Amino acid sequence: MSSGVLEEYSRDQGPVTQPAMPAVVVLAESVEEVQHVMRCAHLFKVAVVARGTGTSLSGGAHAVSGCIVLSLERMNRILEVRPQDELAIVEPGVINADLNLAVAPHGLMYAPDPASHTISTLGGNVATNAGGLRCAKYGVTRDSVLALDVVLADGTLIHTGHTTFKGVAGYDLTALFVGSEGTLGIVVGITVRLKYLPIQTRTLAAFFPDFPAAAAGVLAIGAARVQPAILELLDGNTLGVLDAAFQSNLAARGGALLLIQTDGFGAEAESAVVRKVLTQAGATVEAEDGSEAAMLLDLRRNARGDGVDDDFRVGEDVAVPRSQLVHYAGELERMAAEHGVRLRLVAHAGDGNLHPTFWVNRDEGQAGMHRLQAALDESVRVALGLGGTITGEHGVGQYKLRWLAWEQSAEVLSLQRRVKEAFDPLGILNPGKAIT
Amino acid sequence: MSSGVLEEYSRDQGPVTQPAMPAVVVLAESVEEVQHVMRCAHLFKVAVVARGTGTSLSGGAHAVSGCIVLSLERMNRILEVRPQDELAIVEPGVINADLNLAVAPHGLMYAPDPASHTISTLGGNVATNAGGLRCAKYGVTRDSVLALDVVLADGTLIHTGHTTFKGVAGYDLTALFVGSEGTLGIVVGITVRLKYLPIQTRTLAAFFPDFPAAAAGVLAIGAARVQPAILELLDGNTLGVLDAAFQSNLAARGGALLLIQTDGFGAEAESAVVRKVLTQAGATVEAEDGSEAAMLLDLRRNARGDGVDDDFRVGEDVAVPRSQLVHYAGELERMAAEHGVRLRLVAHAGDGNLHPTFWVNRDEGQAGMHRLQAALDESVRVALGLGGTITGEHGVGQYKLRWLAWEQSAEVLSLQRRVKEAFDPLGILNPGKAIT
Repeated sequence: MSSGVLEEYSRDQGPVTQPAMPAVVVLAESVEEVQHVMRCAHLFKVAVVARGTGTSLSGGAHAVSGCIVLSLERMNRILEVRPQDELAIVEPGVINADLNLAVAPHGLMYAPDPASHTISTLGGNVATNAGGLRCAKYGVTRDSVLALDVVLADGTLIHTGHTTFKGVAGYDLTALFVGSEGTLGIVVGITVRLKYLPIQTRTLAAFFPDFPAAAAGVLAIGAARVQPAILELLDGNTLGVLDAAFQSNLAARGGALLLIQTDGFGAEAESAVVRKVLTQAGATVEAEDGSEAAMLLDLRRNARGDGVDDDFRVGEDVAVPRSQLVHYAGELERMAAEHGVRLRLVAHAGDGNLHPTFWVNRDEGQAGMHRLQAALDESVRVALGLGGTITGEHGVGQYKLRWLAWEQSAEVLSLQRRVKEAFDPLGILNPGKAIT
Repeated sequence: MSSGVLEEYSRDQGPVTQPAMPAVVVLAESVEEVQHVMRCAHLFKVAVVARGTGTSLSGGAHAVSGCIVLSLERMNRILEVRPQDELAIVEPGVINADLNLAVAPHGLMYAPDPASHTISTLGGNVATNAGGLRCAKYGVTRDSVLALDVVLADGTLIHTGHTTFKGVAGYDLTALFVGSEGTLGIVVGITVRLKYLPIQTRTLAAFFPDFPAAAAGVLAIGAARVQPAILELLDGNTLGVLDAAFQSNLAARGGALLLIQTDGFGAEAESAVVRKVLTQAGATVEAEDGSEAAMLLDLRRNARGDGVDDDFRVGEDVAVPRSQLVHYAGELERMAAEHGVRLRLVAHAGDGNLHPTFWVNRDEGQAGMHRLQAALDESVRVALGLGGTITGEHGVGQYKLRWLAWEQSAEVLSLQRRVKEAFDPLGILNPGKAIT
């Protein structure tokens, strides 16, 4: 196996803090091959790091030294779509967007839509309990996963869950596997619930003078009892980045932008209410046919930003209770100023999940990196102080492990280790990730 | 402690197969009291059966011999409602409907609504991952629980989850506790997500010639991409029971009734589509203002039937994939005829969850009971053969244990036992329930 291949599969898109090379990369093509890999790994006590297309932003798929990297990207068949049952059964390597293309002709959709939906796999989405733009209305990955086929640490294949929407027989092992980042078993089959493809959508772009005003707009929409399908908040610095990339003039039109999409039979009525309450809240709401708003949403949805993170730039994934959005955004600006780091901010505002990106200039070297780390640490501490979480949807992976004990008590950390031991007594499944 | 109290707390509303008396009943009033009980139980290795108001239909709260019954019904305070964060924090003894009364003035609702909502507790709802009428649109209990305070088997108090809508730090222990029927820990605090109280609702009653036609109507609504908030299916025998109880003439108007409620900003438009597709499907859709439909829905929602189950009458809780509703209902009728038992059937048709009730006359004695058991067993086997589950929302409890191994493999059963051991090594939490 060439060192180029090993290098390619040694990391995902998250920051690398402990560079490590795998001993071997396996591109599994069947459940049996995954079972074979796990039986061998179990016999020889070798660590196995499962991955899809490696789009994790937290280092959940980083190799550990001498491990087997088990790629599931070739297991990418949509095995079954059952329109009347409103479910689909897929292999873990299916790309999120591909599933949506396959079910759309049936008037159905797979709702969870991480920004990476065109490049990330369902298996990876399951591993991290991926969120996305539509979560506040349609739920996260866990809410759409009905059943799983999982290869356990010793190669045993099990099936959990049910092919019905509801089912409460035994413990909810399915929900436990979702979000466990490959540390409890290797997911080789996924049964997902589909939802109705909205009969119509309406998209609005609302420009506000500043971020606090836009965040207040989010609460005004809630007070009007409208549940948008999408509610994305972009700060002024993000608008500047978009302007530079796409020759737009967004920053000149406001200090913050709220993108709202309503959908379903009530889309028109909800859009009218949103327009009214946001105008009252001081926004300039795009008055045309919404085509620019839809284009902006596409940019937000498909943009992974202007490159991947590294030592000098780190994107965060904290979430805070919705009422704290305004306060927390102010705190982020204060921190950025105090630590002398740059900041830009986007948020899935409907569920209080923020993606601040902090960065320093590369030529600032170690000093800049230290300031960046200090800002990151403080941003996490403050979010937790407001009742938030260190990760809303990206997962703990390797990168956020240092913050996990800030959020969870010693007793919870210990209980998680006991669960891990029940599933993987040898500790060979993705060691050093997700839990301490 | 009087034997009357012990007797009262020795069972829930499910069938009793192994009558047993507790040694003591504790009516806990605080987290500290629950911790004290668990510390003592742990020290002396005494079984603890937690319960709320005892409305389980599966014997999940039945006493085991010599146990401590730990009632949480007095821990019934709504600790906090945070309208802007769209969440509430409650003690486990809060009645489901009381929470809804408390949050309605804020334009919010707690969505999961088991038929027992006026008498069952949130703690019990969490223990069984309770469903209800609105699940297909709004999800089950698990989907609304954000965080839990749990007293572990040794009295340790832990907090799991998050007060944000999304959060993926560590394993989803919250989801694991939900539906674990008091076998992994005692839930003493619940943080739930609230949803917007629908701005309007529309209710329709559609009479069909027979059950298969009504079940086909369910699929027609789906094909029109309408997600009703409620979609309840009642067979002719159930209509007869309602007629007898309420001097109505439902059975004369059709062989099966579909009750549909749409809600939100699209309620009116969705209602019009439903009316159209159901009329095309051969239904007589109530043409008035929907007041009778709303009344019927109230009956369905609040009725626990005409008494509790016993050896001669058992209500089931299977679920099948939606496309199998018609076929399965036909199978149920065949079984009832073959085994010489009576049958009536209601279904949460939106999610394929059926509640057939089988019964025989009391004066048939043992022979009748055996025929009843044979019919129940076959109904479960057939549901499983169609890809269904033995329990959609009531829980396994004690009563459905004999069917669990029909649904789950030996490997899954074993994995569940290992999880149980990680949480409760002494096996004192609700032994003999939920898992084998």
